[in-house]
Amino acid sequence: MSQKLFGNLQVVNIGLESFNLPFEKMNIPHVQVLWRPSLVVSSEAKNIISNNKEKIKAANELAISRLQKGRPLLVGMGNAIDVIPGMKKNLILHAGPPITWERMCGPMKGAVIGALLYEGMAKNEIEAECLAKSGEIEFSPCHEHQAVGPMAGIISASMPVFIVQNAEFGNFTYSTQNEGLGKVLRYGAFSSEVIERLKWMEKVMYPTLKKAIENKKEKIDLKNIILQALHMGDEVHNRNRAGTSLLYRSLAPDIVTVAPDKETALAVLNFMNGNDHFFLNLSMAASKAIIDPARNIKGSSLVVTMARNGTDFGIQLSGTGSQWFTGKAPFVDALYFPGYSVKDANPDIGDSAITETAGLGGFAMAAAFAIVQFVGGNADTALNYSKQMYEITLAESTQFQIPALNFRGTPTGIDVVKVVEKNILPVINTGVAHKDPGVGQVGAGVLNAPSEPFSKAYEEFSKHLER
Amino acid sequence: MSQKLFGNLQVVNIGLESFNLPFEKMNIPHVQVLWRPSLVVSSEAKNIISNNKEKIKAANELAISRLQKGRPLLVGMGNAIDVIPGMKKNLILHAGPPITWERMCGPMKGAVIGALLYEGMAKNEIEAECLAKSGEIEFSPCHEHQAVGPMAGIISASMPVFIVQNAEFGNFTYSTQNEGLGKVLRYGAFSSEVIERLKWMEKVMYPTLKKAIENKKEKIDLKNIILQALHMGDEVHNRNRAGTSLLYRSLAPDIVTVAPDKETALAVLNFMNGNDHFFLNLSMAASKAIIDPARNIKGSSLVVTMARNGTDFGIQLSGTGSQWFTGKAPFVDALYFPGYSVKDANPDIGDSAITETAGLGGFAMAAAFAIVQFVGGNADTALNYSKQMYEITLAESTQFQIPALNFRGTPTGIDVVKVVEKNILPVINTGVAHKDPGVGQVGAGVLNAPSEPFSKAYEEFSKHLER
Repeated sequence: MSQKLFGNLQVVNIGLESFNLPFEKMNIPHVQVLWRPSLVVSSEAKNIISNNKEKIKAANELAISRLQKGRPLLVGMGNAIDVIPGMKKNLILHAGPPITWERMCGPMKGAVIGALLYEGMAKNEIEAECLAKSGEIEFSPCHEHQAVGPMAGIISASMPVFIVQNAEFGNFTYSTQNEGLGKVLRYGAFSSEVIERLKWMEKVMYPTLKKAIENKKEKIDLKNIILQALHMGDEVHNRNRAGTSLLYRSLAPDIVTVAPDKETALAVLNFMNGNDHFFLNLSMAASKAIIDPARNIKGSSLVVTMARNGTDFGIQLSGTGSQWFTGKAPFVDALYFPGYSVKDANPDIGDSAITETAGLGGFAMAAAFAIVQFVGGNADTALNYSKQMYEITLAESTQFQIPALNFRGTPTGIDVVKVVEKNILPVINTGVAHKDPGVGQVGAGVLNAPSEPFSKAYEEFSKHLER
Repeated sequence: MSQKLFGNLQVVNIGLESFNLPFEKMNIPHVQVLWRPSLVVSSEAKNIISNNKEKIKAANELAISRLQKGRPLLVGMGNAIDVIPGMKKNLILHAGPPITWERMCGPMKGAVIGALLYEGMAKNEIEAECLAKSGEIEFSPCHEHQAVGPMAGIISASMPVFIVQNAEFGNFTYSTQNEGLGKVLRYGAFSSEVIERLKWMEKVMYPTLKKAIENKKEKIDLKNIILQALHMGDEVHNRNRAGTSLLYRSLAPDIVTVAPDKETALAVLNFMNGNDHFFLNLSMAASKAIIDPARNIKGSSLVVTMARNGTDFGIQLSGTGSQWFTGKAPFVDALYFPGYSVKDANPDIGDSAITETAGLGGFAMAAAFAIVQFVGGNADTALNYSKQMYEITLAESTQFQIPALNFRGTPTGIDVVKVVEKNILPVINTGVAHKDPGVGQVGAGVLNAPSEPFSKAYEEFSKHLER
């Protein structure tokens, strides 16, 4: 009937999808065009960026070519104070953009307290808290010291860290050893069991792992482990079972070789084996090692950092140097563990979004269908996350592949211009911390980065283009 | 134009797909119905089976319920002669249906020669060959001794074997330790390096692995490893990287604990770590352990064995007891390694198609996209293999899932009636042996089982229904 009535009417809808409903009912051909208004930015910034498209393109090509060439190797371990640039006794590194003690969220405060207890700088929680707010302790983002840390991301002077080097460009990055799940420092726990575990990790596991890494004839190629892990159902942010398995296979014989005795070898093997997230800290350090050479390229709109301190979500661009652009850290649309809900959740926290920044994590969700059982959704959801991220990235990885998309390279290199113009925000696949220190993980899910840091970065980027 | 000419013409095509071409060109609505004539079987058999649909259905429900409940555990190891039922000194077990020395293919003959050298029953190739054809040596299929073997599948008296038990039904299965790639017995190699490796596997690796398995507080749950491996890109026939990794993670601490010294622990760890197919022999034994309780159910058209000796392809049905139905073993549509072609290939060989029989391997290809880089095709090919197998199977696994199909259970339990009536033959994902002994693997690919064993089984099955 309706077809007669409307003759050859054909509809192109660029508005709300629900506008299609009447056409569907009346059997009138219609096409939905994905379009939304850009993020709110000034027309001045838009004009500048529009007038500099060629310059930006060239700068981004350079940035991406560096990103693609990255070859992160696990080259050694050391204590933070000995290896991390700028590290000192009264400095505590944390996840995300800069933040004062006063503005820190619960889990980050808890982790700072734990670090001060661990360092022997305070005898109890109250002493630690007083010290933390006294001004004697300095706080600085991991990212400003070539380091990354999951969740609270706390690194203090004595902590052992992995040393990753990008063999192509020579740059180094650092990350701690992953503590496992449950009551752990990175979720703000600081009870005696947490401190004792950290001490064991420093006194027993670290010397053995350090020697095991040094014992290898060839340095462990983290790029190779990551690309294999993507073929094995990991996206190396929220799922690291394959990465951990492959690292374990690689290191176990060396651990057995160098451990002072059988008991130590067994303890280290069992610790790694008991924690499917063990590889996470290395996938993060590898991601940062890959992307750092793409920093500080004049005219590049590449996002080189996305990081959250649990209060603020911050990003940095290649073309705007070390400046942070921040917005409120959002809550995660998560699957909560039994007994918990969004009321218990801390806003998004951790440097782990460096994996997404490097084209992994949520961007590689379509390589990791099994993760949807942990974060919600189904195989199509996972495919769609990855597919959508091609819209806002500058390239497809020449290294990391998504088997289910016929081995298409992962969407790689977030372009702040595309994010703003298309109003598509990066997806991040992440764990959720309880808002109170020491409770631990309460869920896992997927979120979109907040828009504010991207709008701000876009504005500032346009000003840099004019300099 | 054509639309006017033909008015409301709509076409349903059940013939060749190319018949659609003119309708496509003329823009005439058409639907392709997948249909092909059934395999050639007698009308008597068809009638009997048609008249017994309800009886068959009930029998198959029982068979499938047993298959679904399978819980294969790795319970121990032993020497073949001590643990395999009916094993004796002058008996050699082989892959596939029964075969005489004279009819054996090159790689199987080579492997028999190797086994006789390994057992010290012959001093050299010529002695071994004479002995093999003398009649003093008996040959019997692995499958007739609760065992399975990849490729030539040779098991001789001294060889150590894994012992797998289906905890639900109590039945046992057996398989050897996987030797790795290159020049290995299962591809028919019998040079001194092959025999020496087998001796090391018997004298060094076996005692350590046996103790390591016994050292575990809980038996290793192979079902659990397989279902995890399917989430990690394995289909556990041609790709076993995840299964091997998970098994290694599970056993490494026990190996370190029980090994007589550090060197032995390291040697065993390195051997396992150097062979991504190490888990294959266990996925095979697990598959057989799962399906064996579904044998010998009167009226069931379930295929309980698909096995190849490199000359014949044989199957067994639940409803027809121990009878083999054979046809010529086909060549594999393979990706050949550099320097080799189909001219070098032996026909399809090995008991490894037990994985497909249990709903894994080629049936689970859609869980293992990365394998297409090894066997040819792309992600869609892999999806289609699995999707098509739902057409000829009785159930979807309640245990093993395909993440890319939204965690749909793998197509499980081949129904000979569906195979014959729909003329869709099981896909098998496999390695290809060189036709000459001792060369090794020359490629890998996917093949369809030959039709002859299924037609024969269908005929005989109909006769059993009348008894």
